[in-house]
Amino acid sequence: MSSVFDYSGLLNEVVQECRKHAERGQLPSYIPELKKADPQMAGVAMMTARGLFEAGDTRQNFTLQSISKVFSLLVALERRGVEVVFAKVGSEPTGDSFNSIVKLETSEQKPLNPMINAGAIAVCSLIPGASVEERFSLISGLLESILDRPIEIDEAVYLSEKETGHRNRALAYFLKDINGLEGDVEEVLDLYFRQCSILVNCADLARIGMFLAAKGINGAGTPIVSANAVRLVSTFMVTCGMYNGSGEFAIQVGIPAKSGISGGILGVVPGQYGLATYGPALDRKGNSVVGISMLRRLSDVLDFSIF
Amino acid sequence: MSSVFDYSGLLNEVVQECRKHAERGQLPSYIPELKKADPQMAGVAMMTARGLFEAGDTRQNFTLQSISKVFSLLVALERRGVEVVFAKVGSEPTGDSFNSIVKLETSEQKPLNPMINAGAIAVCSLIPGASVEERFSLISGLLESILDRPIEIDEAVYLSEKETGHRNRALAYFLKDINGLEGDVEEVLDLYFRQCSILVNCADLARIGMFLAAKGINGAGTPIVSANAVRLVSTFMVTCGMYNGSGEFAIQVGIPAKSGISGGILGVVPGQYGLATYGPALDRKGNSVVGISMLRRLSDVLDFSIF
Amino acid sequence: MSSVFDYSGLLNEVVQECRKHAERGQLPSYIPELKKADPQMAGVAMMTARGLFEAGDTRQNFTLQSISKVFSLLVALERRGVEVVFAKVGSEPTGDSFNSIVKLETSEQKPLNPMINAGAIAVCSLIPGASVEERFSLISGLLESILDRPIEIDEAVYLSEKETGHRNRALAYFLKDINGLEGDVEEVLDLYFRQCSILVNCADLARIGMFLAAKGINGAGTPIVSANAVRLVSTFMVTCGMYNGSGEFAIQVGIPAKSGISGGILGVVPGQYGLATYGPALDRKGNSVVGISMLRRLSDVLDFSIF
Amino acid sequence: MSSVFDYSGLLNEVVQECRKHAERGQLPSYIPELKKADPQMAGVAMMTARGLFEAGDTRQNFTLQSISKVFSLLVALERRGVEVVFAKVGSEPTGDSFNSIVKLETSEQKPLNPMINAGAIAVCSLIPGASVEERFSLISGLLESILDRPIEIDEAVYLSEKETGHRNRALAYFLKDINGLEGDVEEVLDLYFRQCSILVNCADLARIGMFLAAKGINGAGTPIVSANAVRLVSTFMVTCGMYNGSGEFAIQVGIPAKSGISGGILGVVPGQYGLATYGPALDRKGNSVVGISMLRRLSDVLDFSIF
Repeated sequence: MSSVFDYSGLLNEVVQECRKHAERGQLPSYIPELKKADPQMAGVAMMTARGLFEAGDTRQNFTLQSISKVFSLLVALERRGVEVVFAKVGSEPTGDSFNSIVKLETSEQKPLNPMINAGAIAVCSLIPGASVEERFSLISGLLESILDRPIEIDEAVYLSEKETGHRNRALAYFLKDINGLEGDVEEVLDLYFRQCSILVNCADLARIGMFLAAKGINGAGTPIVSANAVRLVSTFMVTCGMYNGSGEFAIQVGIPAKSGISGGILGVVPGQYGLATYGPALDRKGNSVVGISMLRRLSDVLDFSIF
Repeated sequence: MSSVFDYSGLLNEVVQECRKHAERGQLPSYIPELKKADPQMAGVAMMTARGLFEAGDTRQNFTLQSISKVFSLLVALERRGVEVVFAKVGSEPTGDSFNSIVKLETSEQKPLNPMINAGAIAVCSLIPGASVEERFSLISGLLESILDRPIEIDEAVYLSEKETGHRNRALAYFLKDINGLEGDVEEVLDLYFRQCSILVNCADLARIGMFLAAKGINGAGTPIVSANAVRLVSTFMVTCGMYNGSGEFAIQVGIPAKSGISGGILGVVPGQYGLATYGPALDRKGNSVVGISMLRRLSDVLDFSIF
Repeated sequence: MSSVFDYSGLLNEVVQECRKHAERGQLPSYIPELKKADPQMAGVAMMTARGLFEAGDTRQNFTLQSISKVFSLLVALERRGVEVVFAKVGSEPTGDSFNSIVKLETSEQKPLNPMINAGAIAVCSLIPGASVEERFSLISGLLESILDRPIEIDEAVYLSEKETGHRNRALAYFLKDINGLEGDVEEVLDLYFRQCSILVNCADLARIGMFLAAKGINGAGTPIVSANAVRLVSTFMVTCGMYNGSGEFAIQVGIPAKSGISGGILGVVPGQYGLATYGPALDRKGNSVVGISMLRRLSDVLDFSIF
Repeated sequence: MSSVFDYSGLLNEVVQECRKHAERGQLPSYIPELKKADPQMAGVAMMTARGLFEAGDTRQNFTLQSISKVFSLLVALERRGVEVVFAKVGSEPTGDSFNSIVKLETSEQKPLNPMINAGAIAVCSLIPGASVEERFSLISGLLESILDRPIEIDEAVYLSEKETGHRNRALAYFLKDINGLEGDVEEVLDLYFRQCSILVNCADLARIGMFLAAKGINGAGTPIVSANAVRLVSTFMVTCGMYNGSGEFAIQVGIPAKSGISGGILGVVPGQYGLATYGPALDRKGNSVVGISMLRRLSDVLDFSIF
């Protein structure tokens, strides 16, 4: 635990030091729109009881991508209940990559957890509503309650993923085939691609992290989701939040976190801080190279690990 | 080799004897329309130089289903050439089931062979034409040249598969994702579902078998496809024609054959006969239980095995 | 957190309530000697700063089995260092079962983590020493420092596993083939079977849990292993300690824990308690049915979850 | 079919032309003793009713390796019967490599076929005899009846494989664990390593091929094994004789064949010839690069294909 009062210096130092690691990573190739990002960008933000500290490119907008899985899971747990959710999705980590389809066929015929793509698509299918718009408003509404501002999506990214998301479409139809997806496949995919396209920046993500660190209470002190749903989601963030790099991240950083292929990482130090990093170059497991190195550095200094 | 002049007695005896094995099989559950078949039906037909011999339900129409993979492969080989075809599909048997997706992810990222669903969908994408209708006319045209009659599809089965073919849709989008499918996914699937819905009976299939036994020459003595394309297709029928039951079938019957989940089997005794069986109850690998037992019996008596 | 001063009542109640769940489990079949256990047994112990609380069959001896993986990993980390260990074993959870060999072939050709059998055997091969006896004394010595009593093994179980441990032998030779095991295969297996056969009871395990909760300091206040090694091992206990049931256990109980197929579970509430349960009937993932139900119950009441 | 009377010219031409393909292959690395072979060697032999024709390095001795699987399977089929053999081993080709262990765990828990290592080891365990020597004499005795000369093994290769055959040892213990191997594991492996070390040259192999082409009758006209056993083995040679390159070989060459990692290939043109090639450089599936190219060339000219 730390007794530092102003984290700005530390955060600046960390950005300085870690930005260079971008060269070890690559921009994702499978979503054309994401290839336009600047791989040199690096930002880190930290929301604490004493306010927001930040350094680097923390006001650069990017799309949530897989980080959105956290919010649709919260909505599904609150609206449909734990039992309904776990009937469609498991709770086990997997040694396979985030978009793998193998285990759907060889194991228990439901996605191993809600943090891999197949599981997140199954969770999306559980979000109630008469239309995609209505369902989406439950997810965007949650984020609006946390951030106290309107939510927008990046239309170009949304359309790009909708058109080229063949692998996710394959996962969705496979799920439909094994009775793992409620409702119309294309509508569920539409919802999934929309949530992936929600725009945020590091400052936003740090606030969201603090909301989770505070067990579901927003900055105004209002409880938005139940502490139990936050606990469940935080647990998944530890065991599966960084795809098949989660085990190593637990060893090296030791906090609930969720990454997205746009280069963002959302981190939570329970009861203490919200964290966010940005850096678009990814390692081969799909996690931000600069983001992970910044979080490792911070965890070494501030002793984040919950273990 | 046999010196029998009239096979009718033998065929009648075989139908009699094998019809009871239907109870060991089941109607397929994944295509709703196919569940309407009568599992007690059994038919066998044999086309020889001396004419057609038949016994049992040989005039009952059924849809080609996977047997159609033989014809789209012939068309693709003739129209696009061996190299183009084998750039998109392998030539190895697989120990996995016909609709498996696992190997697409874990092996060389192209379907192992053109007789599993993924491979057949990839082959369909290679058939040239400005529209689905134009492409389909190449496949139906081939069958019309062999059978000398117009080809029809079962509209109800076609629409049923098109609506509920989630697994095939998953395979097709997965292929698209790994650059294994030319053109528009839904159009390719449309073509695939159409060819699966072509109506034939055992007498037709036996004629088709004879056409293959004669290396691509039809009943009127006209060469329709090249001997080399027939040889390639016959080889695939031996190594992969009965899905992951092909090895056992090679041991027990020993001829090029292709089964479909509607219960038909097309067989070829090179240079000698065309064979066809019908029996809608399937074993767990997707092959007709009665059909296989009839072919085993015939192979024991007439010594079909090419090995 | 709890303000209760005497946990005896709670523990008794929990044993009473959960013992009946034994009927949902089964004794393991693959180690003949373990089939002799009484599936009705149930015990729970809790070591706190105020002393040991216990209920049920807490003085029944059983063999450590997979719980021993915790101790050989501690020894390997302390003696060989983090880098040497992670060169031979990964840090990712797996969706496969504890004795699976598949991922060794299909993934990165090293065991995914040190808590599955393949990984634990690889770790055993890293323990230094001129003979099996010398290597074993490092593991038993660690336990003696924690428990302040001599360590014994169950000779019958040791010999039974040594003779019938074909799957572990397969894993070890596979590792040798992929350069994943140092030294002589049979010697490494001998060490592995010995550590699996170490005898403990629930009271011992609770003390060991407290030692881990105290970051490596034993009951006499002596630091035995480094806090960093304890942190690493605790992290693995969370992500992979309950085999491919670890994710669900994290959701339901939320503490570092390690199970063994003899029916024991070692639990750690960091900074607070050591926990131990015993109940030989296992679920299909290899974890004690009664043990898990007792830990879930305790976590509900005492709010153990670290998430 | 060919009307050529003397094949010597053709064979010389083929060796000349194909020897250069050796550069596309590699010597196997996993059996140290085999790395000593000269990758430039190339030989081809053809046994016909009119006698033996040969070209290149046809008198160079090499070890049978996987080609020996043909003979232990013949012995097991003759001595134990079809049912006993197929209770321990399947008859399906596999898309996996020859030493893969994956399918043992994920599929029906018996080796998919007797031509992959796991299956061949299971078959070895079925060969009767009071000692390894006695069992081995059944295999060597079969070869002596065919070749009419004493059989020897390469002691250095035998000892090298026995010491370093970790992967085969892993397969054998895995089989033992799933009840797929009769008797003592190390004895079965000893028998397997001995049969792999039997010394032959191309001239021998061509004679053996003719024996199979003649349905089990040796050069002196004596029936040595039943025609049915030969048919079964020939079928396996087509569907699985070239490992996971069998499908492509069937397309390109079209005859029963079996390769070994020492660089030999045994081929059979049923009713006509025995064929043998030698060339130690292997493709990545474990088949001789030069051997396959020579057989393709011969099949193009002499139209071998049985399809």
